[in-house]
Amino acid sequence: MFSFDVTATSGRARTGLITTPRGTITTPCFMPVGTRASVQTLTSRDLVDLQAEVILGNTYHLMLRPGADLIAEMGGLHRFMDWNGHVLTDSGGYQIFSLEPKVDDEGALFKSTYDGSKHKLTPESAVDVQTKLGSDIQMVLDVCPPLPSPDGVIVAAMQQTHRWAERARAAFLDRPERSDGMRAQFGIVQGGLDLDRRVESAEFLMAVGFEGYGIGGLSVGEKRTEMLPPLLATTDVLPVDQPRYLMGVGDPLSIVTGIANGVDMFDCVLPTRLARHGTVLTTAGRMNISNAQYANDPRPIDPGFPDSPIANWSRAYIRHLLQVKEPAAARMLTLHNIAFLFRLVDQARDAVAAGTIGDLVAEVGEHWS
Amino acid sequence: MFSFDVTATSGRARTGLITTPRGTITTPCFMPVGTRASVQTLTSRDLVDLQAEVILGNTYHLMLRPGADLIAEMGGLHRFMDWNGHVLTDSGGYQIFSLEPKVDDEGALFKSTYDGSKHKLTPESAVDVQTKLGSDIQMVLDVCPPLPSPDGVIVAAMQQTHRWAERARAAFLDRPERSDGMRAQFGIVQGGLDLDRRVESAEFLMAVGFEGYGIGGLSVGEKRTEMLPPLLATTDVLPVDQPRYLMGVGDPLSIVTGIANGVDMFDCVLPTRLARHGTVLTTAGRMNISNAQYANDPRPIDPGFPDSPIANWSRAYIRHLLQVKEPAAARMLTLHNIAFLFRLVDQARDAVAAGTIGDLVAEVGEHWS
Repeated sequence: MFSFDVTATSGRARTGLITTPRGTITTPCFMPVGTRASVQTLTSRDLVDLQAEVILGNTYHLMLRPGADLIAEMGGLHRFMDWNGHVLTDSGGYQIFSLEPKVDDEGALFKSTYDGSKHKLTPESAVDVQTKLGSDIQMVLDVCPPLPSPDGVIVAAMQQTHRWAERARAAFLDRPERSDGMRAQFGIVQGGLDLDRRVESAEFLMAVGFEGYGIGGLSVGEKRTEMLPPLLATTDVLPVDQPRYLMGVGDPLSIVTGIANGVDMFDCVLPTRLARHGTVLTTAGRMNISNAQYANDPRPIDPGFPDSPIANWSRAYIRHLLQVKEPAAARMLTLHNIAFLFRLVDQARDAVAAGTIGDLVAEVGEHWS
Repeated sequence: MFSFDVTATSGRARTGLITTPRGTITTPCFMPVGTRASVQTLTSRDLVDLQAEVILGNTYHLMLRPGADLIAEMGGLHRFMDWNGHVLTDSGGYQIFSLEPKVDDEGALFKSTYDGSKHKLTPESAVDVQTKLGSDIQMVLDVCPPLPSPDGVIVAAMQQTHRWAERARAAFLDRPERSDGMRAQFGIVQGGLDLDRRVESAEFLMAVGFEGYGIGGLSVGEKRTEMLPPLLATTDVLPVDQPRYLMGVGDPLSIVTGIANGVDMFDCVLPTRLARHGTVLTTAGRMNISNAQYANDPRPIDPGFPDSPIANWSRAYIRHLLQVKEPAAARMLTLHNIAFLFRLVDQARDAVAAGTIGDLVAEVGEHWS
């Protein structure tokens, strides 16, 4: 009920197709982040217009507001959002990185960012919450240390992630199948920047056995150049016939570099967060539409991307809306930035098939660092 | 190039059709307010989806941000917003009510709400600004006192409005026609709650001669029951073959009451402002979707309005988005509230044709006060 087929390869890069009872996901793909059951400023209708195939939901946020039981009572996250595409849910593991909870072997004890109340996430409860949400692809609870961290912290985090992965898999297999027969859970590779540990972590998780593999613990403070060797070490080991998901990475150059090195899936708050601050992803690089130089600029936001969903409005208009704090501006830029990354992965898919992914990486590198 | 045809009448009520080079406006109509060249939270594409025919723009705000010259340079307000429907612009007169500028016979001296800088609006400069904006229907600069006000204030405001109307009309006729031949300027009737003064004001403005007439100085502090007699006194005098626009009125009961008494056009920030605070206009009356009772309510926002543009989402989902401050919520409720008022004027139009507008007023009065 969950399958992945490689449709073309070029060096380490590949294109593929994930097939589920819900439909298909063409890879490589970028997943917009819908933290609180909404990709910020957008509705599910916008996601359909953007031709999104899969979005990400946040277990940590949804278990606190509105609560996993409420979402289950409302028919699951898809019905709650009126979204028929795929949903991948993270496990709350990233919050172990960003919110610094108390972690012991049992799980992680968080303080709610909403009301300060205490909540425990264990590998098992993360499965339960994601099962209640009804997501299509679940992620295991992992420990994601920031970089740089002392070696002992990196190793301990990896080992904890491994022990939790075994428990999460057992819990997952123990729960009843979803009514449509769908069952997909991804393990998460940790191990910091050390190549041997990355290999060790990937092999451990493969031995446990998942439908796909997240590559975690990267893009958490290290330089981009430092990210590539451990990424490569990981994709070289992971199964060719299963999807690989580079977690939390979404800048244009990292996306195409990741694709060139065998990654299939990406997610990041970057396009939505930048949009809210007036920063636009364009074919000519990063653009701050708030700058005074755009005040009377009649050109569309990105002349190099004439199919942008906001190509019918001028830079002058969009800048004006931002200046006077009209809420429509953030939505317009969110639509554009997501469409820009969708276009980028489309181009990468074509480039892999044509054997020109290296050229695309070079081209993107001219405008993005 | 601007014509108005009455298509049906029932008592004082009528339906009509405004025809311009840009297209048609079916009346009675409700005009959403796009203060800063955007109906808050929406884009022009949303307005097309809502089948809006005319929106309102604010001279005062647009002359300050981004400035009338900039909008003219960008091809006018329609092109700036990428909006092909009609735009009616107010004159800044309402700000004389709400911002208390220094008013003398020459004009009104405002302090900018953006940066405190001083700006003068005269009857002539209000025409110039609206001409630069390229609006389809201009309003004259008027003096709109709050209610209650001392009799002397009401009379002085009316007389100032009259003198300014003559100057505004002269200035308007003195400016070159728009390239499409379009020319429409509405006078504004003042006179407070006194019936004789309302008649005097209407007759004065009719003698000056305009393409249509605004009814101003109502819904500015008085009770609803106090509004009706001066409204009636005014519509009884105004020409039957020209449109009548009740300014700043947009609650459901006032709209249908206005229509029953011969009004053709309405505008109000009510549906957009309420939406941002989680208040929903429904067939069962006003609803605050933030209330805890809706937390797990799977029903659509208004079961009595199955064609609402947000009927596919549950009350529980919309409430959740509001609770966690997701910006999509305000847009969804704005779409609904505007669609609700559009539906209401559609129903009123049908009721006028069927001779049942009185029944509709009674029906709306059961849910709205």
